[in-house]
Amino acid sequence: MSNSAHISQDISSHLLAKRVTKMRSSAVRDLFSAASSSDVISLSGGMPDVSLLDSTSINKATKPTYKESMSEALQYGSTNGREETRAVFCDIMKEIGIFAKPDDVLLTTGAQEALDLIAKTFINPGDIIITEGPTYLGALQAFSAFEPDIHCIEFDENGMKTDLLEQKLKSLEKPAKLLYTIPNFQNPGGVTLCPERRKHLIELSKKYGFLIIEDDPYGRLRYDGGHIKPLKALDKNVIYLGTASKIFAPGLRLGWICASKSVLDSVNLVKQGEDLCGSNFTQIVVEHYFTDTPWATTLQKFKLTYKKRRDAMLKALDEYFPPEAQWTHPEGGFFIWVTLPKYVDCTSMLNEALEMGVTYTPGDGFYPDGKRGKNCMRIAFCYAEPADIEEAVKRLAKVIEQKLELYRAFIDAGAIKEE
Amino acid sequence: MSNSAHISQDISSHLLAKRVTKMRSSAVRDLFSAASSSDVISLSGGMPDVSLLDSTSINKATKPTYKESMSEALQYGSTNGREETRAVFCDIMKEIGIFAKPDDVLLTTGAQEALDLIAKTFINPGDIIITEGPTYLGALQAFSAFEPDIHCIEFDENGMKTDLLEQKLKSLEKPAKLLYTIPNFQNPGGVTLCPERRKHLIELSKKYGFLIIEDDPYGRLRYDGGHIKPLKALDKNVIYLGTASKIFAPGLRLGWICASKSVLDSVNLVKQGEDLCGSNFTQIVVEHYFTDTPWATTLQKFKLTYKKRRDAMLKALDEYFPPEAQWTHPEGGFFIWVTLPKYVDCTSMLNEALEMGVTYTPGDGFYPDGKRGKNCMRIAFCYAEPADIEEAVKRLAKVIEQKLELYRAFIDAGAIKEE
Repeated sequence: MSNSAHISQDISSHLLAKRVTKMRSSAVRDLFSAASSSDVISLSGGMPDVSLLDSTSINKATKPTYKESMSEALQYGSTNGREETRAVFCDIMKEIGIFAKPDDVLLTTGAQEALDLIAKTFINPGDIIITEGPTYLGALQAFSAFEPDIHCIEFDENGMKTDLLEQKLKSLEKPAKLLYTIPNFQNPGGVTLCPERRKHLIELSKKYGFLIIEDDPYGRLRYDGGHIKPLKALDKNVIYLGTASKIFAPGLRLGWICASKSVLDSVNLVKQGEDLCGSNFTQIVVEHYFTDTPWATTLQKFKLTYKKRRDAMLKALDEYFPPEAQWTHPEGGFFIWVTLPKYVDCTSMLNEALEMGVTYTPGDGFYPDGKRGKNCMRIAFCYAEPADIEEAVKRLAKVIEQKLELYRAFIDAGAIKEE
Repeated sequence: MSNSAHISQDISSHLLAKRVTKMRSSAVRDLFSAASSSDVISLSGGMPDVSLLDSTSINKATKPTYKESMSEALQYGSTNGREETRAVFCDIMKEIGIFAKPDDVLLTTGAQEALDLIAKTFINPGDIIITEGPTYLGALQAFSAFEPDIHCIEFDENGMKTDLLEQKLKSLEKPAKLLYTIPNFQNPGGVTLCPERRKHLIELSKKYGFLIIEDDPYGRLRYDGGHIKPLKALDKNVIYLGTASKIFAPGLRLGWICASKSVLDSVNLVKQGEDLCGSNFTQIVVEHYFTDTPWATTLQKFKLTYKKRRDAMLKALDEYFPPEAQWTHPEGGFFIWVTLPKYVDCTSMLNEALEMGVTYTPGDGFYPDGKRGKNCMRIAFCYAEPADIEEAVKRLAKVIEQKLELYRAFIDAGAIKEE
């Protein structure tokens, strides 16, 4: 019974819960290591460029943790988070038309924990959840742990097709419980839900009695066009999810849920058992970042930088990508969604891309069944410099071109039909 | 459809998941607000006294987040946590006889998230889980969300009665899956599992095929007696949970799981969907606290302080508590468990105690059914100064004395039997 340095023998695998045996790892997470190689240009991860932040601001935001707020920073906090930090997020929401009080807000470990808490609070096995298809794979991971039945609705450049949603709702045998949407610069689509469809969505939620989860990590990163009112500003029953990850930094892991008292009471209970409370320490840092530093100017710097990168990517796509490829034209956010002829398998193509020194995220991970989206990919313009983005798109175009040569030969031979 | 500042109307309560309707709020959490009133001396919360930490150390530990490690501190991290921080926890475990590599460790948002991740990874509805009874209510909250069948085994001053455990295992209709134990200075019992029972427990786990979860938040806070080898040092299959909360500070929310590769692979997958990754920022602070500051000296200060407080509490109990009360005599940790005659209801008595200016944690919350333990309470000596502890115990003794007058009158009248 002595201990060994190598812990390898295993008695646990047959004891795993059923929910775990169905889980799939995130392709994005798995790629984080590959992307750290210096020869590879990553278009896969949705990492904000935190090098745009300055150390003076971080120093200023951090100082209270070892000065006047030290005891509080080091101690356990309340499950819903510090009131002062919740108030800061209320101020931020006010700027986009959501009027809430600190009591309407609960702090989470990034918006990812918000998704998990909502899922745990509401989803029974077999419950019907509706999402855009494709959608954020982290949301699919959070929901899937509680074994719902997930239905996907297509989007176009104006966001989720609410007419298709209405058809779906009419056809369901039991009512949908939750609808999850990323209305601004969707992940992975890059598309934005237009005002008319926002209204339609709210009407449908009232008619069919489902809760809307509005996930808005990218809303403040708009590079063209005017602001569109959030769903939460149209209907107070919407559960709104925000995060400091993209307007400040993800390393602090601070997001929030804005919802009605009864939703937050239940979520609070769930969070008690999940992690007791978040970190007072990071809450204090984030609070002071948004009160003691010129964060709006820094946000402007973020936006100008990302806009240049988006422009570089759209230009490179126009220049290098083959005529068979289609892609979205985001007005903000981090991502472009590329659709290739359906004979191209982007999952298996990833190895060839990696050999050519570029990575992307294969499309199938953004669907709950992992079957659709195989001919699609998400490419992120947030992290690489414009010159690198051009080079990466060029490399990727070559990989795709090789695949399409075969595709075109088949078409010429009449073996398959052109799409 | 205009938004209002007061978000109150509600369409969500009938949509709650079944698991939530069964959840109970933590009495400790609920008391945090009451305890913050200055007239009340709290013996309820298990809050470490972070005022013992010095700002020079915290400043030193925090500095890398706005200096050399800034970009990493602000960025997303890997799901299992920074390798350097995991290595620091390996060094700490080595001091108590556990030899592990960073790959054997996964970082969590306090040990509470570890409990939740383990529960989500292993528990199917109806699975049999064994715990000490009473046990840590946060563990019960984490487990209960996944609807197991929890069986409790009594303890005495030598920890869980493993002979009763063996009887229980023999009598079960299906095998137990997990056994959760806090072997050192148990919460709420204060008792420590003796070496013979540790061996017996390991033997039983091999014979009956269950996994042992060894939760060890207080192990380094021993005030008398010699170190006892952890279960993990006796058997590599044990899942060991550690935390920086009591040897440094809970506000950073940093704990860890030390387990076999196959356990951690599954836990990693579960954590991806739960919060993506922990905070690089706090991981860097904690890492530098344990490398750049005289933390062992600070730990010594913690121990001397808590020892004085424990001694003050035991002395006050001897002096003021009635002969009908019994309590444990912990050699470390934060808590003493008090048992009163079974006619005393400590849950309803809490209001009277609060009026007298003292709080404790009623015993029933430490049992999964909330029915047992009504005549018991947990009192914490970690947070108040010795003089306040004496005063609090004196106040509490008065409240109990009032209850016992009635009890004694009934005994004198022959209406009930003396215990």
